[in-house]
Amino acid sequence: MNHRLDGLFPPVTTPFDEEGNLLISRFGENLDRWAAFDLAGLLVLGSNAETPCLSDEERLTLVRTARPRIPAEKSMIVGAGRESTRHTMEFIRRIADLGADYALVGMPCYFKPLMTEQALFAHYWTIADEARIPILIYSVPQFTGIHASAGLIEKLSAHENIAGMKDSGGSLPFEAEVRRRTHSRFKLLVGSALTLLPSLVQGANGGIVAISCSLPQMTIDLYQSFREGNWRQAAEIQERLAPLASAVTASLGIPGLKASLDLMGFYGGPPRPPLLPLDPDQRNGIAVLFRQAGVR
Amino acid sequence: MNHRLDGLFPPVTTPFDEEGNLLISRFGENLDRWAAFDLAGLLVLGSNAETPCLSDEERLTLVRTARPRIPAEKSMIVGAGRESTRHTMEFIRRIADLGADYALVGMPCYFKPLMTEQALFAHYWTIADEARIPILIYSVPQFTGIHASAGLIEKLSAHENIAGMKDSGGSLPFEAEVRRRTHSRFKLLVGSALTLLPSLVQGANGGIVAISCSLPQMTIDLYQSFREGNWRQAAEIQERLAPLASAVTASLGIPGLKASLDLMGFYGGPPRPPLLPLDPDQRNGIAVLFRQAGVR
Amino acid sequence: MNHRLDGLFPPVTTPFDEEGNLLISRFGENLDRWAAFDLAGLLVLGSNAETPCLSDEERLTLVRTARPRIPAEKSMIVGAGRESTRHTMEFIRRIADLGADYALVGMPCYFKPLMTEQALFAHYWTIADEARIPILIYSVPQFTGIHASAGLIEKLSAHENIAGMKDSGGSLPFEAEVRRRTHSRFKLLVGSALTLLPSLVQGANGGIVAISCSLPQMTIDLYQSFREGNWRQAAEIQERLAPLASAVTASLGIPGLKASLDLMGFYGGPPRPPLLPLDPDQRNGIAVLFRQAGVR
Amino acid sequence: MNHRLDGLFPPVTTPFDEEGNLLISRFGENLDRWAAFDLAGLLVLGSNAETPCLSDEERLTLVRTARPRIPAEKSMIVGAGRESTRHTMEFIRRIADLGADYALVGMPCYFKPLMTEQALFAHYWTIADEARIPILIYSVPQFTGIHASAGLIEKLSAHENIAGMKDSGGSLPFEAEVRRRTHSRFKLLVGSALTLLPSLVQGANGGIVAISCSLPQMTIDLYQSFREGNWRQAAEIQERLAPLASAVTASLGIPGLKASLDLMGFYGGPPRPPLLPLDPDQRNGIAVLFRQAGVR
Repeated sequence: MNHRLDGLFPPVTTPFDEEGNLLISRFGENLDRWAAFDLAGLLVLGSNAETPCLSDEERLTLVRTARPRIPAEKSMIVGAGRESTRHTMEFIRRIADLGADYALVGMPCYFKPLMTEQALFAHYWTIADEARIPILIYSVPQFTGIHASAGLIEKLSAHENIAGMKDSGGSLPFEAEVRRRTHSRFKLLVGSALTLLPSLVQGANGGIVAISCSLPQMTIDLYQSFREGNWRQAAEIQERLAPLASAVTASLGIPGLKASLDLMGFYGGPPRPPLLPLDPDQRNGIAVLFRQAGVR
Repeated sequence: MNHRLDGLFPPVTTPFDEEGNLLISRFGENLDRWAAFDLAGLLVLGSNAETPCLSDEERLTLVRTARPRIPAEKSMIVGAGRESTRHTMEFIRRIADLGADYALVGMPCYFKPLMTEQALFAHYWTIADEARIPILIYSVPQFTGIHASAGLIEKLSAHENIAGMKDSGGSLPFEAEVRRRTHSRFKLLVGSALTLLPSLVQGANGGIVAISCSLPQMTIDLYQSFREGNWRQAAEIQERLAPLASAVTASLGIPGLKASLDLMGFYGGPPRPPLLPLDPDQRNGIAVLFRQAGVR
Repeated sequence: MNHRLDGLFPPVTTPFDEEGNLLISRFGENLDRWAAFDLAGLLVLGSNAETPCLSDEERLTLVRTARPRIPAEKSMIVGAGRESTRHTMEFIRRIADLGADYALVGMPCYFKPLMTEQALFAHYWTIADEARIPILIYSVPQFTGIHASAGLIEKLSAHENIAGMKDSGGSLPFEAEVRRRTHSRFKLLVGSALTLLPSLVQGANGGIVAISCSLPQMTIDLYQSFREGNWRQAAEIQERLAPLASAVTASLGIPGLKASLDLMGFYGGPPRPPLLPLDPDQRNGIAVLFRQAGVR
Repeated sequence: MNHRLDGLFPPVTTPFDEEGNLLISRFGENLDRWAAFDLAGLLVLGSNAETPCLSDEERLTLVRTARPRIPAEKSMIVGAGRESTRHTMEFIRRIADLGADYALVGMPCYFKPLMTEQALFAHYWTIADEARIPILIYSVPQFTGIHASAGLIEKLSAHENIAGMKDSGGSLPFEAEVRRRTHSRFKLLVGSALTLLPSLVQGANGGIVAISCSLPQMTIDLYQSFREGNWRQAAEIQERLAPLASAVTASLGIPGLKASLDLMGFYGGPPRPPLLPLDPDQRNGIAVLFRQAGVR
């Protein structure tokens, strides 16, 4: 039986000190805070974790630290994409050993013009065949430059070890088409808080949205209002949430998300270079916005 | 008091014969059919009318023909964008004389790199100042290559003669931001049937969507279900509508829309070159899809 | 026997007064000045003439004015593209009556997703069949969003009434491929002064470059140095020319080009709205640059 | 005194067997063949080496193997870019220990929207400060999605430990502007064989072009003809070279390059998944083209 994939998953960040060193104890403390919320689970080693800027050793340390702090009834999704098929499979073996429930596999993207649908199909199918834990496809064209078609997702959804996808592209027509072309066992999690409610209206199963790290309860409330058929209330929360998500994550990216975590009592801290920290005006802008919205 | 801008507006097509000549009587017949539906009005000389392929004389003939056939309680919106500010103003004077209720003004786009927000602001403000009828801004980045910001729309919404906008970009975050930044008197009409319900959920006032030409009742039903708070029924209609809209208009464009009109008892006919008519397989594909969906 | 298509052609601008009215006498004076240079001819109604912002009547007035002022041994190329095939043919008939030597036909671009190679082929072939003067294809993807393939150009080059193309895309690999795939009778004129010499090295026949309006002799010198095998001298001129062309036309567009005409003793004047005139700092920047380069 | 940076550098490929295992002996044999040509040096761990699909251990093995096989008078450039500043510095320390002459540092690109010029400047400057060997900037926007400005390159060229750049963007205007804004000590190597001669005409110092792996002599001949002032001969070679480079590397990418190596007596072999090998038709197409061109 598969672990839960309906609901909200914060894509947790990676704490660093001012020198860019990993602060693993801060990571543990954050996890303990998130454990108190009715989340469906967490994503470790997502884009928001600055995963491309971590060594493999650091990545495994994070997974090892997270596992005991995520309650059994919640899902631990772990980011596992690599540019080569073989290294992706290898990394999935290691996170499966450490107790990951799902491997979220981003698309290889360096050789964009060669990443045909045929190549992507072979990549995912091979990985899904071999993996001991179920796979989630991760599409984030704004970072990868790869726009997978709904037809490709449909074909991949036929593999019994591919449990769903995270779509961070933010295209509602694409999400609707994926939903239409896949069976209900295939879970669709969306990556943009800006359109969380519209996506749910169209049949998405939940979200892995950055703002859920700093404002978990607000995203949970939106989701539950929708599930209970209270769409108007969901629309009101969506309307309050969107400008916060837009300011913090869409405009300012990971450094903005980390600043919002600091604000809400989590450890955010600085990003690792080459990402630059916010300047004081940007930090202050977030504080003002959060105050105005009454979230702190 | 302004004319109605809430609800559904088909962007009506322009009938041609096989030689590409305008068939004005067919246009009149189509209008008479649309008059029977509870539409909020019609858009004449939109993109779907192949307006860039019409002469000014043909354009005015279409407006003159349409006016008496659109009941007074419905709005006649007329496309009026030109590359130059002066020719746009001139054309608006002429359609105002002919009884247009609103002028829909697309963005000048040939000199893309020079169409700064400053240039676009001056263009719209000057036009709105002079026009005797209210203006609607028209944003369709997939055709124009111009991505106007929500900030520009906010500034323009301060002009009392700018009544709203039609957004065909299909970006839900953009629409949500426009909605947030403008007062409720500023009407937001969306141009994509694929996301009609999600847009309404976010506060859009209605739609000018191509599929509304061939399936007017279905789009009206979706809108009214939503307005009455019956969101689940609206979601069901949206789900049935999306694949039809996707096949007919998103994939096949104007020739596809015209084929669907032929199928539904309107006059569609061939497009004017350089647009190519559908091949028999494409026409048949639409017929099969409409039959499967039970809409005919 | 065809008119000359090897060498330099300034794409002449359209003079306006401060109200945006056409100044036809200024246009005539500019033409008389250009007549003194060893240019291969001129392009009237190109993009730099703000053609999309002119009425048909204004367009024909410009052609009528230009014809007697362009010596018989030089070629008068006239821009003639329209969105519809029929209106393009109609306009070519009119400019042929007025003595145009070539019609430069841009690609229909409003309905981008429908402008398949099949549609573009039919458009150009039909026009070339009917036109009484030879046709030049005009490719300017930065304005049109249409990237025609070298294969399409190859197919069109088989038509005996298609004499060549103007390529303003600035892609040297594309130009090289066009050159390889077409016979030597098919003339390749390039639209970017930034890469004029590299293009000539690759087999281009000449250029229709904006900076040739204000600095005709410099562009002629570059061309002739190259033709005489004096490549090093050509490279030196190219190196001096590129920053001027970059500043004036690539960065500032038509308003910049017009300012440089004012500087060099032609009539430049303001652009027609929605194009905005340069601010004083921008005008001054051009003056400084031209002074430093010793061109005035 | 710095090592040579003028001339041709093949970006060598990485040999794999059918299972995707590294064939280090084949790599050594290829290097011995390249040693016989009058190349300026080699690039190890470039994009064409499928570096993103290699483990760190494999990368270091390749460097260790290459060093003794590259004669002292030639330069060994080693690709060293990583997403994080710290891991890039760490890897440069290791390749410097192994005798690399230059580190070619690609731009971090996963978090595209955050890779501002300020972030990129800090990244490169920090790395150049610390590195014991000189740095070359690597710009390849078609893979990274990052378009660095000529202004950024100008600022970075002020660092005494930044020796030059490899530009694979193929934009001649950009290359000309970089050349204009940098001192002559800053070397400009281009990455596209399609425009090798035009780039040299504009002042580039040489090339790191894929086709130089399979046709080293032809690229050397082009370069030397140009250097000796024999531009016409250089243009003839360029004309013969371009369609081969276009077919092999521009269209078919690394698998095409590897097939061309097989054809010319080197070991090419299959790529590592997710890259797919050529199908027989594609392989045969290359063979026919090479035969027609008389290169084998």
